[in-house]
Amino acid sequence: MITITIIGSGNVAQHLIQAITKAVGLDLIQVFARNKVSVSHLISNDKIISEIDAFKTADLYIIAVTDTAIREVSSHFPFQGKLVAHTSGSIAIEDLSNTNKKAVFYPLQTFSKNKTIDFKEVPICIEATNDEDFAVIKEVAQLISNSVYEINSAQRKALHVAAVFVNNFTNHLYQLGNEICKKNQVSFEILKPLIEETANKIKTLSPKQSQTGPAKRGDTQTINAHLNFLSDDNQKEIYRLLTKSILDNGKKL
Amino acid sequence: MITITIIGSGNVAQHLIQAITKAVGLDLIQVFARNKVSVSHLISNDKIISEIDAFKTADLYIIAVTDTAIREVSSHFPFQGKLVAHTSGSIAIEDLSNTNKKAVFYPLQTFSKNKTIDFKEVPICIEATNDEDFAVIKEVAQLISNSVYEINSAQRKALHVAAVFVNNFTNHLYQLGNEICKKNQVSFEILKPLIEETANKIKTLSPKQSQTGPAKRGDTQTINAHLNFLSDDNQKEIYRLLTKSILDNGKKL
Repeated sequence: MITITIIGSGNVAQHLIQAITKAVGLDLIQVFARNKVSVSHLISNDKIISEIDAFKTADLYIIAVTDTAIREVSSHFPFQGKLVAHTSGSIAIEDLSNTNKKAVFYPLQTFSKNKTIDFKEVPICIEATNDEDFAVIKEVAQLISNSVYEINSAQRKALHVAAVFVNNFTNHLYQLGNEICKKNQVSFEILKPLIEETANKIKTLSPKQSQTGPAKRGDTQTINAHLNFLSDDNQKEIYRLLTKSILDNGKKL
Repeated sequence: MITITIIGSGNVAQHLIQAITKAVGLDLIQVFARNKVSVSHLISNDKIISEIDAFKTADLYIIAVTDTAIREVSSHFPFQGKLVAHTSGSIAIEDLSNTNKKAVFYPLQTFSKNKTIDFKEVPICIEATNDEDFAVIKEVAQLISNSVYEINSAQRKALHVAAVFVNNFTNHLYQLGNEICKKNQVSFEILKPLIEETANKIKTLSPKQSQTGPAKRGDTQTINAHLNFLSDDNQKEIYRLLTKSILDNGKKL
């Protein structure tokens, strides 16, 4: 049985608490949360701590706080020589304090409150500084997920940037689509099967094979009609830039 | 039994042939295709025509050719007063020739060769110029799909532009994500569950509620780190513009 303490109470922390609680072979012994209420529906109150001197000894401490706080949190632990992992896509393993053994436990998924996730399907990108620590972090990850990858800090940074493109920016395009529908009194519902199929295609075709539309066809007549139709300058600029990118991409070998 | 003739042999035509052939109550009597081979795996050869004088009388003629050819195709039919529908998101109903009765039968989905689609889930946006024609087009649509919408030409144009954002541009973001992965020797596979969940979220949350990431958080440190990381000017410019759009959007009420 591997004992684990989570530091944090946000989206990632909350989803991790649920995943670890469910996993056979893992024991979530404490959650450090400044605001106890935010996690009290997920774990019994006696396991929630908010004072730094209340930490018990655990095999692994997982820091699931906002990126900018990771370094400071890791430097204030009252213990030394323990295994400490952060969960961030963009923070290097070296940024953790030298007082403890360093690791990364990065679940690459978009977590929202009130939206459950099957953690078994969440890719977990792990990193450690030696084989012994790596074995522990790997065992924990494999008890939670079916999809575990060894990824170094440089690769993780690339993955995080790529994730911003395929998730944050994609979701923003959904929002722009929603705005266009609203403005023209059409239901956004009509677009949902298209959104679903666009994501589904990627499972069997490469993005390049999946590309369709006026830019892909070089159909300047439709492109110009769309640009004339759009009245919002921001939407126009995004339409223009992404169309140009698709057109240029088609010319690449 | 409603008799139908399809004009065209591309992606939309091919998927329509399959959907109509399967539907109870519809009889696909002919397919007009300049290149017989492209549809010969979908329908018996005696039903494929490539000469304009071979058209039989049908209740509905569906033009599924490239946008720029629709007007011309519709003006060359050797018959008059029949019901003729096009399948385009961006062409107005008026663009069809006046010699026949006009309608629109726009399946709002992304069609690729070698990727089957459950047409029952494809939203079909229909339009006609009178109640009688509308009744026919509606019956055909409802025999093929569970999701039929009456949409006028102005609304259809808005839907088509919105579809470019949520489908064409989204798929291009997948491609940019793929490029970033390749360049940094990470498997694009790791991002697939994220892509799937990003689309899934939209079923239960609005795009605004679903938005996460550094731009949404106003995390300029991560944004700048990402911009420094990207070496491709095009990727940088897209990152900058979409980040700005998310930031500005957060300020809107």
